[in-house]
Amino acid sequence: MATLKINQLTKRFGRHTILDNLDFTIEANKIYGLLGRNGAGKSTLLNIINNRNFPTDGEVLLDDASINNNSAALQQLYLMSETNMYPKRTRVSDMFRLADDGYGQFNFALAHRLTKAFDVQEKAHLSNLSTGLTTIAKLITALCVNADFIFLDEPTLGLDAGHRELFYRELLKTYEERPRTFVLSTHLISEVQPLVEHVWILDDHQFICNENVDDLLANAYAISGPAELVDEYTTELKVLDHQTIGNIKTVYVVQPLDETKVIPDRVKIEHIDLQKAFMALTNGEEN
Amino acid sequence: MATLKINQLTKRFGRHTILDNLDFTIEANKIYGLLGRNGAGKSTLLNIINNRNFPTDGEVLLDDASINNNSAALQQLYLMSETNMYPKRTRVSDMFRLADDGYGQFNFALAHRLTKAFDVQEKAHLSNLSTGLTTIAKLITALCVNADFIFLDEPTLGLDAGHRELFYRELLKTYEERPRTFVLSTHLISEVQPLVEHVWILDDHQFICNENVDDLLANAYAISGPAELVDEYTTELKVLDHQTIGNIKTVYVVQPLDETKVIPDRVKIEHIDLQKAFMALTNGEEN
Repeated sequence: MATLKINQLTKRFGRHTILDNLDFTIEANKIYGLLGRNGAGKSTLLNIINNRNFPTDGEVLLDDASINNNSAALQQLYLMSETNMYPKRTRVSDMFRLADDGYGQFNFALAHRLTKAFDVQEKAHLSNLSTGLTTIAKLITALCVNADFIFLDEPTLGLDAGHRELFYRELLKTYEERPRTFVLSTHLISEVQPLVEHVWILDDHQFICNENVDDLLANAYAISGPAELVDEYTTELKVLDHQTIGNIKTVYVVQPLDETKVIPDRVKIEHIDLQKAFMALTNGEEN
Repeated sequence: MATLKINQLTKRFGRHTILDNLDFTIEANKIYGLLGRNGAGKSTLLNIINNRNFPTDGEVLLDDASINNNSAALQQLYLMSETNMYPKRTRVSDMFRLADDGYGQFNFALAHRLTKAFDVQEKAHLSNLSTGLTTIAKLITALCVNADFIFLDEPTLGLDAGHRELFYRELLKTYEERPRTFVLSTHLISEVQPLVEHVWILDDHQFICNENVDDLLANAYAISGPAELVDEYTTELKVLDHQTIGNIKTVYVVQPLDETKVIPDRVKIEHIDLQKAFMALTNGEEN
């Protein structure tokens, strides 16, 4: 099973550091979530991993060989990116043919079924499609291309709710039929939580989280109650974010709780979902 | 108070009808939601209303004067569109200046505050910004421009959850300070439900809904229970969509219920939200 290794990866634009010394591994046959606030550098990272942009330092290795201009390695990676790389008069069917030319064994049968399910015309020109329909055409290509590592940058950009549901279902279906690795970078975190096994959170140029989703959520809590009791209970915890309504305070923590510690009456401890944990960890405000 | 009237508007591309004889009014100082599945023609409609595209038939009137090449009328309309109309080296600050040149009295104070709040650099070039940051720059321009009708096509495209919340808050704030009309076209229906007073749903080239949101939701129901009892109760209703899990059936209707009709034991009737009502009305599948 092939593995991608990202070693001490740094990217600077002029004096700005975008990515600072990232070290991580992308394993075979797993679904990952790459999360981060706007401008965190997610697209830059995906572009570097796919040899569309170059690191200032560090390297990307597939089974210990650098992917840099390594066409055999790059044949195992596919990036569905936000930017449109296709010539102006490209039709949807041309995208399928180009993916077949580049990677071989394109799953045309699945592509035909999906164009019908998503109601997009194969003969339509990409330049005439709306944002949502363009995303659909790119998504179908990404689900049918023959590669072991599929990177999806904003796969639901402009998609309506019905089409988002359909995409999540079809992703799981093709993943079961032909296991491979998917990396999803998205802002609709609640929606992808059921799909994603492992999550990276990019913040301040580094991963502040590189963890199995279940492990992360097992330690992600909202603690609420009268402010003074909550403060007392959480005095030794690292409070990531908090809200106060009247005298009721809610604080968010992502760390194991001391099970021997007595929870005051009127203080409630609840698990939070991935979206809330993300907001707390990145200090985003939700309300 | 100015009013926009859309009269018998039809748009065809070749043999394809996109919009079929739409008749509706856009009133002053209201927040509207324009909803529709991917490819329904929402962007085409917004472009026609803003004189960026032409109808095959029909007209758009501002206080009974056609907006077609009517620069005084067009000065009251502003469209934040998905397509990027700016020259390549445009900076964020240039967008503000251009909006001031075109409409006068641009709210620079608000723009400066919002660029800080959204963490976007005014001197950044638009072409170097990610999808999310580009949306933010366009949104800020739209919230600060001096026009009475502001049309926002996919205002949250690529925005993270924190920035979406911030946008909704700032939209309401500027709306309270300086009432005007906003038309939001978006696929994140649950998120905009609290903002929107009136909703249009575009489906099959026509409005299948043109209604006050509260009135719509007052008659939007999920009816669930044992299949045979649900079928019996709903026999005279127009069932828009249904799901069955085991013998438990849930059907969705958007119409007044006969209050004299006895509800069988074990049948549960609940109100649904705008997202669910939309899915039922457009026959989208959600699960």
